[in-house]
Amino acid sequence: MAKYITIKEIAKQLGMSHSTVSRALSDHPRISAKTKEKVRKLAGELGYQANINAHSFRSSSSRLIGIIVPDLSIHFFARVVQGMQEVLADKDYALVLFDTKEQLESETMAVERCLRYRVDGILAAITMTTDKFDHFSHLIKQEVPLVFYDRVANFLPIPKVVTNDYQAAYNAVQHLIQRGRKQIAHITASINLNNSNNRLYGYMDALKDAGMNVNEALILYYKFEPAAIETFITKALKDYPDLDAIFVFNDYAANYSVNVLQKHGKRVPEDVAVMGFSDEPVATHMTPQLSTVKHAGEKMGQLAAQKLLAVIEKKEPLENEKIIIDPELIIREST
Amino acid sequence: MAKYITIKEIAKQLGMSHSTVSRALSDHPRISAKTKEKVRKLAGELGYQANINAHSFRSSSSRLIGIIVPDLSIHFFARVVQGMQEVLADKDYALVLFDTKEQLESETMAVERCLRYRVDGILAAITMTTDKFDHFSHLIKQEVPLVFYDRVANFLPIPKVVTNDYQAAYNAVQHLIQRGRKQIAHITASINLNNSNNRLYGYMDALKDAGMNVNEALILYYKFEPAAIETFITKALKDYPDLDAIFVFNDYAANYSVNVLQKHGKRVPEDVAVMGFSDEPVATHMTPQLSTVKHAGEKMGQLAAQKLLAVIEKKEPLENEKIIIDPELIIREST
Repeated sequence: MAKYITIKEIAKQLGMSHSTVSRALSDHPRISAKTKEKVRKLAGELGYQANINAHSFRSSSSRLIGIIVPDLSIHFFARVVQGMQEVLADKDYALVLFDTKEQLESETMAVERCLRYRVDGILAAITMTTDKFDHFSHLIKQEVPLVFYDRVANFLPIPKVVTNDYQAAYNAVQHLIQRGRKQIAHITASINLNNSNNRLYGYMDALKDAGMNVNEALILYYKFEPAAIETFITKALKDYPDLDAIFVFNDYAANYSVNVLQKHGKRVPEDVAVMGFSDEPVATHMTPQLSTVKHAGEKMGQLAAQKLLAVIEKKEPLENEKIIIDPELIIREST
Repeated sequence: MAKYITIKEIAKQLGMSHSTVSRALSDHPRISAKTKEKVRKLAGELGYQANINAHSFRSSSSRLIGIIVPDLSIHFFARVVQGMQEVLADKDYALVLFDTKEQLESETMAVERCLRYRVDGILAAITMTTDKFDHFSHLIKQEVPLVFYDRVANFLPIPKVVTNDYQAAYNAVQHLIQRGRKQIAHITASINLNNSNNRLYGYMDALKDAGMNVNEALILYYKFEPAAIETFITKALKDYPDLDAIFVFNDYAANYSVNVLQKHGKRVPEDVAVMGFSDEPVATHMTPQLSTVKHAGEKMGQLAAQKLLAVIEKKEPLENEKIIIDPELIIREST
């Protein structure tokens, strides 16, 4: 077990009392500059750091923020966490990380652990399979400051930071229409998720507003099995030889779509334009480079953390509120 | 501030004493089954969780592990953290995350915070700019269990989990030679980093063992400015028109290299083969799909966490030891 340097150890080495060392470290006016200097020098040499847990036990602030993430290996979420850290570390909070791996059970456990560690607040994005919300209700009842980001439970009365997915998708599809595309397919994710749902509505409304029909045969509800994309595109190309664009809910699936199209001898964007969503690293590393929607992870993390700190430190009420990040289209080679 | 449900609150609602509730929750034999049932039912309804900080303050185990990561947005490191969590959550430890963003200053601060939170142990990979090690020496002096992973300070006498970068690079270059390539360039990263250094030596030795010359003009020491890759490849193609392969230290730079080669009208792999390193998602999302070395992030995280737990719980000594993960070549279309 670690032998952390304590005040006792410093006192012993300097032949001083515990209280003298303690007061020297907290810059007490009754302690002479010379003594403070001595104490600080040795503390520095020994690598002494005050025990925040002792402080936490007295003050009931743990200086810990629980971060609940669906999948850290998705680049967007890693950037969100980096944005959160920027804001939180500045105010001397540390991040306790829980990657739920898209499992409701892990999410429930993460919330329980946040309670046990008496975190000062929680930033959470729900999993793709979350269909029960008791664990979050428990947090709200206990008035634990909680802010949702990106993937949110709309009906829970707490602050949420989201991208305007509807508008982003609308703009993306409008861009395709403006480039003269007439037969536009869409690949969307689970209908459980508010954000992919909103992208679907944005797609539909952009078509309608341009006087174009929504054709269910040109929409794939993707369950993260790449083979389904190949089947979908193959059938769509057969049934609708004039298919000239696909709007895809994320960049990896968009890239996979490009590969499938190329296998069928289609040129991107000449024959079929492809538009992604998120601006993941893959977007600039594929050929052609992908047009997409900037999903500003770092900014989302910063805004969510700032909101949480406002609740914790400025005692802002924990209430229903939506902070919306406006999306930005990034036009590259694929459209 | 959060109003966490306490034992006091449960006792009040049930009209029982604090100690009865406390003993009921810890399954004390002197408490009747009926009382335990009542207490547990209400505790469940209220979402009560025991305060781990109170426990930690008594037991001097915080149940926190400090995780120091150079850049979470690198897919490999996100996978490492997921692997660590798998092992640590099972044993009821939570992860306090510090992303150093490749800054020595942030790394020093992360170590200080780990000390203040009295973490039970630390898993660390150093930044690309780390050239001072006092902060780690302080940890070692205080006997804080510490295990390095991936990017390690070789001279510090603690356990390290690394990929056999030398052998991986040797095998990768040998593969290119076996495919008949005769003029093989190399793009490497900072010479400060032991792992890219080892890849460089693997490259050199594979060439020498095949009776080929190492030509400094065909080695780029890359400082993460993509333009340098374009300049390097353009010059190499001009000075060495028979250039027929490039081994690159990571997949993103490899992908960028493919783009540059294609701009110059070179076909990959027919004219120039390209071999990457890491098997990031980009490797399977580019055209052609990239041959690379599997950099097993999740496994590395698991092994590092297991080693740390052995030190913390089984009191294994904290000593110089290298746990080496053998690399696996993944041959795809680019070679």
